[in-house]
Amino acid sequence: MHSPNDESSLIQRIEAALGAKAPSFGVGIGDDAALWKARPGRDVILTCDWFLEGSHFWRDVHPPDVVGWKCLARATSDVAAMGGEPRCFLLSLALPESQTGTWMTGFLGGLRRASRALKCPLAGGDTTRNEKILISVTVVGEVKKGHAALRSGARKGDAICVSGRLGGAQLGLELLIREKTGALEQDEVLEKHFYPVPRIDLGRKLTARKLVTAMMDLSDGLSSDLQKLCAASRVGARIFETRIPLAGVIERQRIEESERLRAALHGGDDYELLFTVPKRKVKRMRDAIGGVPITVIGEVQGGRQIILTKKDGTEEPLQNAGWDPFRHDKKSS
Amino acid sequence: MHSPNDESSLIQRIEAALGAKAPSFGVGIGDDAALWKARPGRDVILTCDWFLEGSHFWRDVHPPDVVGWKCLARATSDVAAMGGEPRCFLLSLALPESQTGTWMTGFLGGLRRASRALKCPLAGGDTTRNEKILISVTVVGEVKKGHAALRSGARKGDAICVSGRLGGAQLGLELLIREKTGALEQDEVLEKHFYPVPRIDLGRKLTARKLVTAMMDLSDGLSSDLQKLCAASRVGARIFETRIPLAGVIERQRIEESERLRAALHGGDDYELLFTVPKRKVKRMRDAIGGVPITVIGEVQGGRQIILTKKDGTEEPLQNAGWDPFRHDKKSS
Repeated sequence: MHSPNDESSLIQRIEAALGAKAPSFGVGIGDDAALWKARPGRDVILTCDWFLEGSHFWRDVHPPDVVGWKCLARATSDVAAMGGEPRCFLLSLALPESQTGTWMTGFLGGLRRASRALKCPLAGGDTTRNEKILISVTVVGEVKKGHAALRSGARKGDAICVSGRLGGAQLGLELLIREKTGALEQDEVLEKHFYPVPRIDLGRKLTARKLVTAMMDLSDGLSSDLQKLCAASRVGARIFETRIPLAGVIERQRIEESERLRAALHGGDDYELLFTVPKRKVKRMRDAIGGVPITVIGEVQGGRQIILTKKDGTEEPLQNAGWDPFRHDKKSS
Repeated sequence: MHSPNDESSLIQRIEAALGAKAPSFGVGIGDDAALWKARPGRDVILTCDWFLEGSHFWRDVHPPDVVGWKCLARATSDVAAMGGEPRCFLLSLALPESQTGTWMTGFLGGLRRASRALKCPLAGGDTTRNEKILISVTVVGEVKKGHAALRSGARKGDAICVSGRLGGAQLGLELLIREKTGALEQDEVLEKHFYPVPRIDLGRKLTARKLVTAMMDLSDGLSSDLQKLCAASRVGARIFETRIPLAGVIERQRIEESERLRAALHGGDDYELLFTVPKRKVKRMRDAIGGVPITVIGEVQGGRQIILTKKDGTEEPLQNAGWDPFRHDKKSS
């Protein structure tokens, strides 16, 4: 006989929580694999993302609902970064038997909300037991054939743009570790750290009209991610400290501007878009994307250096100090 | 500056080891996500599989080359079970910094051999640091539209068939834990445990000719997997102890027949196919599949019971004692 916590029962709970299959599915959860129908005239986007207890989240810091939302949102952000739309996802979940109760229910609640908000239904997955909670999410997306935005197309003279404001997720994490209280939940930076919203609509509009030459999402921090985009495009860049859109913080937090700047340059997890636009298209781009705030923070240059022009007019090479799992511990950094 | 062990360097090593991109790829490793082109007239198969140190393999028991081969082979077996062909895979790899040297090189060697043998190139993935080695593999496959074999189509009277011989992987694991010696590597059962070969060609032939009514792969053990197939098809089954094709063992191992039977009924990791065929098609099926050994071990029945007819003619309900991560520890079971 099966115990209430055997693998089949867990799979049934996941299926029940994540709801109905999308019409594009032949078969969802419960067979050897999922069947999915790609649409004609589209390229398929494939991406996967780790979300591990102790590296990407902590059980004493992040409510299970947040873990559920965030594991799907961040994987989906890679689809947004290509200009695509998510179509479905696979969930690889490993957890201790002790977390199959309340924790898992909260987790599935957050995951369901993300799945609905991002129009990205569950197609399948794998479940096993482990002492720590391990999550790997694979997202399948689609983009009009030949329209995907890559990291490699930036050209000298292009404007370097970012969406939204930067550093909020990092400031939110720091606040959380410092104050460890549920009373903070109304803060904008905490919201950004807990429930990031991938820029799917913006990414699609930017690529559908061929407005960008290169694009990626900001997951590790501007200083690391800009370096990756420039390396892929074989170009350099100059950005201006004063133009970087800093995350808003509320008065009583007394966060100095230098801290906000550090978070904006090197903090990860914002899931905003970083992209390059030919200068003559900047106005057209602004008209096309509706209300999303976009800031031009610098321009693509020849050579391979990435220069930061500071407030006082001096310049320095931009230090690559974003998050790298092999160099940092996120919680203690 | 990047250290030799930062994330980018690891990704470069993985890319170099796994070789050239397949022609169906727009973009592979190194962008936000991979781009892949589905073929017209096909359904896409999506599957993912955990392979965790301490649950699915042990560093002191399984050479890194074996871990590399097996993590891809077992995920690909789910594609074979649907009658599909693998097209590409995503690798989610987390490991301690101490294993980024020799261990990772060995692992990538085994993975490359599997990738080539199974015609399943690497499309992308995610890499991070963790105290234990964590692997999740997502395989993308394709099958002719409407031809996928599901678990749910078995009908009363169908013959229940298995490919190959059963229990070998389990006996191999037990041998390995008991004797812990490299000298055993020539053994058939050890080979089966170390380097399983998914039945891709067989699965494709069986479905292309619509010979099977239901199919799945044997990953957790016949007793568990037959129960899953019957539950999905809402049928019962009778199988005969004397017909089960037991794994061969060499003389000096002195493994009793009762042990071989136990391994065949309840041992996991064989990655053979379990399928049902209408009785009138059994001969046609044998003709169609070429040299692969197939054994009819019983038949689908009405009701929902699964009965084992024993050697002495007595019968009993088949105990569901295959592997379940929430009930067993593989090494100590």
